[in-house]
Amino acid sequence: MHKHRMMTPGPTDVPSEVLLEGAKKQIHHRSVEFQRIYSEILDLLKIVFKTSRPVLPILSSGTGAMECCVANLTSLDTKPIVIEGGWFGKRWNDICCGYGLETETIQVDWGKSAEPELLEEKLIENPNCSAVFVQLCETSTGAVHPIQELQEICFKKGVLLVVDGISGVGAEKCETDEWNLDAVIAGSQKAFMNPPGLSYITLSDRAWNAVRNSKHTRFYFDLRKYLDGYEKKNHPFTPPTSLLHSQLAALKMISDEGIDNSVRRHSLLASATRAGVKALGLKLFAEHPANSVTSVWMPEGLDSSLFIKKLMAEEGVTIAGAQGPWKGKFFRIGHLGFVDSNDIILALSAIERVLKKMGVVIELGAGITAAQNILVKKGEYK
Amino acid sequence: MHKHRMMTPGPTDVPSEVLLEGAKKQIHHRSVEFQRIYSEILDLLKIVFKTSRPVLPILSSGTGAMECCVANLTSLDTKPIVIEGGWFGKRWNDICCGYGLETETIQVDWGKSAEPELLEEKLIENPNCSAVFVQLCETSTGAVHPIQELQEICFKKGVLLVVDGISGVGAEKCETDEWNLDAVIAGSQKAFMNPPGLSYITLSDRAWNAVRNSKHTRFYFDLRKYLDGYEKKNHPFTPPTSLLHSQLAALKMISDEGIDNSVRRHSLLASATRAGVKALGLKLFAEHPANSVTSVWMPEGLDSSLFIKKLMAEEGVTIAGAQGPWKGKFFRIGHLGFVDSNDIILALSAIERVLKKMGVVIELGAGITAAQNILVKKGEYK
Repeated sequence: MHKHRMMTPGPTDVPSEVLLEGAKKQIHHRSVEFQRIYSEILDLLKIVFKTSRPVLPILSSGTGAMECCVANLTSLDTKPIVIEGGWFGKRWNDICCGYGLETETIQVDWGKSAEPELLEEKLIENPNCSAVFVQLCETSTGAVHPIQELQEICFKKGVLLVVDGISGVGAEKCETDEWNLDAVIAGSQKAFMNPPGLSYITLSDRAWNAVRNSKHTRFYFDLRKYLDGYEKKNHPFTPPTSLLHSQLAALKMISDEGIDNSVRRHSLLASATRAGVKALGLKLFAEHPANSVTSVWMPEGLDSSLFIKKLMAEEGVTIAGAQGPWKGKFFRIGHLGFVDSNDIILALSAIERVLKKMGVVIELGAGITAAQNILVKKGEYK
Repeated sequence: MHKHRMMTPGPTDVPSEVLLEGAKKQIHHRSVEFQRIYSEILDLLKIVFKTSRPVLPILSSGTGAMECCVANLTSLDTKPIVIEGGWFGKRWNDICCGYGLETETIQVDWGKSAEPELLEEKLIENPNCSAVFVQLCETSTGAVHPIQELQEICFKKGVLLVVDGISGVGAEKCETDEWNLDAVIAGSQKAFMNPPGLSYITLSDRAWNAVRNSKHTRFYFDLRKYLDGYEKKNHPFTPPTSLLHSQLAALKMISDEGIDNSVRRHSLLASATRAGVKALGLKLFAEHPANSVTSVWMPEGLDSSLFIKKLMAEEGVTIAGAQGPWKGKFFRIGHLGFVDSNDIILALSAIERVLKKMGVVIELGAGITAAQNILVKKGEYK
């Protein structure tokens, strides 16, 4: 018998009730019924994003939403600054490059987080910068960047901070309105507990000004079309009705839990995961680790890709590997979206068993016991 | 009790078995299991498109696939010709405009089809044209364009013919390889019997040359990325795994029926629908009507929007109205994808009852009887 557990930082496990909503009979996207559902989704998205402004659903992967930001918020006569601390930071650069933009890159070592002072310096050196691109959580390393501090610096300079919150929103603290964030994007397959297929974007008033001034070629990713649609409680193109049906069900679950409680839960589960792997003598990869994913160095001499394969084949647990130049060096345990205390214990227990069988010197039970000591404090967690 | 029947030209009704496949437990998109599924999908798509070349899935609405064509196949120093015979012909122009292209438009009256001679003339007048944009079936009018003839003209001139087959592929004859079509696109929510969310695109070798030469800014819609993915049986970004699961199930059903049989079925159902409405004294809107949708003039003095509302409220049948300047003037019965003879009879019967109640002079039973006389010949249909 093969019982499969998804502990990846996206796509993530989706509740059956949510999946079944997506299997409902098709409805037409220009019907009153659809408008009612869409309208509810638009309201609930604001709760998750902690904003009173429109949050616009885009039918694309997260990369599509990233491209929306580049296409709508930059201009060729300016020089964006990209904070590149991993695979997805690099993607900001790749997209900018695709749009003919020359960027200034703040290279952050994999596993490290951006230093606000460095951004401040870079902004002084580059007065022609109008937008800074960053991740809330760099999924490829499991590190979080200090968004609130970065935003304060950008705000003072009149520069937009564009936040890829794809694996962050719903799991990390992200106060869109309170922190004056200019652009925040997210993806359905992460803390939103839905299959992949939808991305989300919200912009500040300053950012909307940039949208109106952008001269980049764009059609499908022209955010003005989505804002028009938002006002009519409609989507500018044919929306993915089944994914919206399931998203509504998942958003209701998130809203029932409460968005702050959801972030607290992710924080608790992340702490327990970290305590667990540390108790096994493993080392964390990220200096400022995220709530959504824990990156762990593979014990020296062993290949994390092999470990991940064994974990899947022998224990049915899927975790993620390291990407790009770090392939084989570390592994990533996702605890994002529809995840609870028991999932953390089962993942850690499987990790213990496989490491033991691979000959790593660990004390069986030490990881899960350390996690238990954190998880039992659930009530006090914040 | 409200029993809902979708008779729209997309989104369309989706078999429950297909919907339930989409509700399967999530899998990771970089897993061996996903590669196996994706690989099967890529093979089956070729059958539906009647091509031996790659058919690439894009996570976007049909408009996204249209934009792919504009972004990858045009250049600013050429002047595309757009055959605009309705709402979606206009969309080709809108997208070209978004990409800063000046186009030459062949305006075709709504309900009419393109005349190949006119294209020949336009191509002589515009030696700087490198691509012609057209619809296989113009969904907004229910008219088909003579693709094979248009392609022969373009081919002789060394000009690409780009075919929006969104509501056509799978329902209309479309011999991608045999006719040397340069670009054909389709959408999951049409004859592909899947919810909306995926679009598909296939290109000729000539078209791939244009892709490599295109200088437009693009990232998410850069087809080279999808071709790379195709070769690795992988998707360049996070693909919509649940929609791909359901698409595989639907593609298997289409392949079991046989693509030519599928086109025959659509042709039969369209003939029956036309016979039915004509027997009620109604007039067809399209001169060369499509297999996927039948457009019918509303009897004079009556508003088709009101008729459609009544049909939905009183009989549970959803059909589509007329868009843009034609709002209220005609209605469109979709018979596309998961539709059989009984669906045609039920839709016509509901139409009869509602027209009668609206005071239109019709003979009750005449429409469905005329349709029966066609449907009974199913075996001989081709």
